Amino acid sequence: MILTNIPLNHSSNQKVVEGNNKKGGIKLETKSLDRRDLPNSEFETRLTRAQAIMREHQLDGLVVTTSFDFRYFSGLDMQFWESPTRPWFLVVPATGEPIAIVPEIGAREIQSNTWLSDVRSWPAPCPEDDGITLLSDVIKSLSKRFGRVGMELGREMALRMPVIDFLDLKKTLIGNVEIIDGSQILWRIRMIKTEAEIDRIREICRISSDAYDALVYKLSPGMTERDAARALRIDINARGADSTIFLPAISGPGGVPQIVCGPTDRELKEGDVLFLDTGSTFDGYFCDFDRNYAVGKISDEAKRAQETVWQATEAGIKAAVPGVTTDDLWEKMNLVLEAGGSKSSNVGRLGHGLGLQLTEPPSHMPGDGTILEPGMVLTIEPGIEYSPGKMIVHEENIVIRESHPELLSTRAPREMPIIK
Amino acid sequence: MILTNIPLNHSSNQKVVEGNNKKGGIKLETKSLDRRDLPNSEFETRLTRAQAIMREHQLDGLVVTTSFDFRYFSGLDMQFWESPTRPWFLVVPATGEPIAIVPEIGAREIQSNTWLSDVRSWPAPCPEDDGITLLSDVIKSLSKRFGRVGMELGREMALRMPVIDFLDLKKTLIGNVEIIDGSQILWRIRMIKTEAEIDRIREICRISSDAYDALVYKLSPGMTERDAARALRIDINARGADSTIFLPAISGPGGVPQIVCGPTDRELKEGDVLFLDTGSTFDGYFCDFDRNYAVGKISDEAKRAQETVWQATEAGIKAAVPGVTTDDLWEKMNLVLEAGGSKSSNVGRLGHGLGLQLTEPPSHMPGDGTILEPGMVLTIEPGIEYSPGKMIVHEENIVIRESHPELLSTRAPREMPIIK
Repeated sequence: MILTNIPLNHSSNQKVVEGNNKKGGIKLETKSLDRRDLPNSEFETRLTRAQAIMREHQLDGLVVTTSFDFRYFSGLDMQFWESPTRPWFLVVPATGEPIAIVPEIGAREIQSNTWLSDVRSWPAPCPEDDGITLLSDVIKSLSKRFGRVGMELGREMALRMPVIDFLDLKKTLIGNVEIIDGSQILWRIRMIKTEAEIDRIREICRISSDAYDALVYKLSPGMTERDAARALRIDINARGADSTIFLPAISGPGGVPQIVCGPTDRELKEGDVLFLDTGSTFDGYFCDFDRNYAVGKISDEAKRAQETVWQATEAGIKAAVPGVTTDDLWEKMNLVLEAGGSKSSNVGRLGHGLGLQLTEPPSHMPGDGTILEPGMVLTIEPGIEYSPGKMIVHEENIVIRESHPELLSTRAPREMPIIK
Repeated sequence: MILTNIPLNHSSNQKVVEGNNKKGGIKLETKSLDRRDLPNSEFETRLTRAQAIMREHQLDGLVVTTSFDFRYFSGLDMQFWESPTRPWFLVVPATGEPIAIVPEIGAREIQSNTWLSDVRSWPAPCPEDDGITLLSDVIKSLSKRFGRVGMELGREMALRMPVIDFLDLKKTLIGNVEIIDGSQILWRIRMIKTEAEIDRIREICRISSDAYDALVYKLSPGMTERDAARALRIDINARGADSTIFLPAISGPGGVPQIVCGPTDRELKEGDVLFLDTGSTFDGYFCDFDRNYAVGKISDEAKRAQETVWQATEAGIKAAVPGVTTDDLWEKMNLVLEAGGSKSSNVGRLGHGLGLQLTEPPSHMPGDGTILEPGMVLTIEPGIEYSPGKMIVHEENIVIRESHPELLSTRAPREMPIIK
């Protein structure tokens, strides 16, 4: 994924601290996050940049259906997306303001509590025509310079509407507007975060880092993976997170067999490694980083693997500067892992983007080809399987800055904290 | 949505309690939920019934991509679905066992910790071919009686894979297998719950009911909606829920202006109604019901509205017996609401199904036409807007039984608990 840079204006709630400019790294002071409402200027900034990118890609607009893209352009904070019954649409034209086409149940709230002024609605659920005619009419009414609009049809995206409705929509537009895959364009827009977005990711990283640090004192051998996950989940929420959407807890002797499922009722035993990972959110933005704990004394082999992966993380963080590609980043970490005796990995990459979603492009892997730019928020996530079924995986969250990256998570200790 | 009944066998971990049979209602004793693993027989029962329905609809198989349908047929408990990067597929043939086609990162876990024996994988992410060739080959190899497979293309479903990959998949199957909308078939399969599924919904309803009851003692005027939501979220998790995916908290003088967004930093004031709703989960299954609290003394108008909606809920629960349609159910509740002076509603229905998802078909509304059957788990959700911007909405969760329904949530008190 090759990106061309369209600079983000700094939104009005930030000011450049003069003193730090001279050191090369720009440091921004931001308003307190106590009051969360983003100013309209935040969305105007996002829209202006998105419209420049749309024109570059010869699009008359983007039509989005997912909570993530809808929120990016509107600021809508709504948990109701969890119900799959009603589709919600936002049309972001290449000129002018976004138009929301939403079920009646949400119209009033969107009108009064987002910056959007053009909100149209229908009485949903309506299986015969769940917003499709309304949406089609809006798309047809866009100013037609290129005759094309983009939708969420490609990589790392899934359209949040029935496919049969999408195919019907396409038919209504034949000879008028072509629908193309807008996923690469949307990812290009969302991949460079504003300072307001970074503030939110920093906040959830701080909350989760503190909870990880405190966790070791709450656990003891004989507790289960579920107990550990519950203790962390409750503490993250007590410290101010809005939700904890992702929190696997996995344990095994000297390492874990996999990193995608769990927790289970497995009890923690002497010599285990306990792996916890969390995607918690603050004001819609995710953290995504893990921590490893030793249950009593772990083997020397496990300790060596821990040191290798910790050093690979150091190498990844150090290498993450503007101009470098995600392929380079992978290479720098992989060199350390191979030197440490990495046998194999089934993860397929050594980190990725994050933001409104737990994982976003790019992927740190050969062939991805994304050039790092200031404002990208990334995980640095090297892992090793030092023996069959014994994996150790580390993860930190960073934001790319003009010089060295800013670490958003608190750096994991070099040796695993010990559960006694 | 009209259903024909294909009976579910009772799975092996249940036995009918003879004594209760005579009263008309069948009461089942179930194993403790401490050990959660469902026996293979649970999935064999689901598969057998699904295959009968597939044959009835002349399908050679179903191909599913969402966490919900994948879990229904496989038992896979995985939070990693939150990452949109990799697609996961399960092919459920009309004869034989399901075939999982999954990224390498999850293959080992699925092989060792689900009942599935046929697990195929590819090294993902792989933007050039993210499992499509593998999936296409499996679909082509299905025994072809009808030349059609169903996918999640219709109502209340969204395909969890890039649409461009779906269109490519369709092309590879031209002249071989037709892909049709399988959503109505999948919903028909999932709409009648097994006793093991009902046990899980009952457990999360019990946990959330207890937390709602305890909440009134934790709140006081001056706290914010966010404080209330956080207190409830933490308690639900402390009491044993696995996660809280949905928890809006909304307040307003004498009622709430909407029920989809929130919490915000609004402070609770004398005369407010505080509305909380939760979709929390236990072992993958949701509850979905709300509660209302009075902050100090609420107006007589608000009290009258509360009584109307409470009585409408009584009418809905009483009416929910086999043979009745969802249209009838709506009518019974609506009569009470209209008699109480209901002005309008933008919700569009008065309840719905639930299970592996927060909301599932059917919808209690005119035209839905679903005939109630034993094993359906439903919300009873009447609401009233007694004055502009002042809504009161109640909700309970029930399961349809041979005679009267079983209440899964603890019935809300007739008068709102008072926050002092």
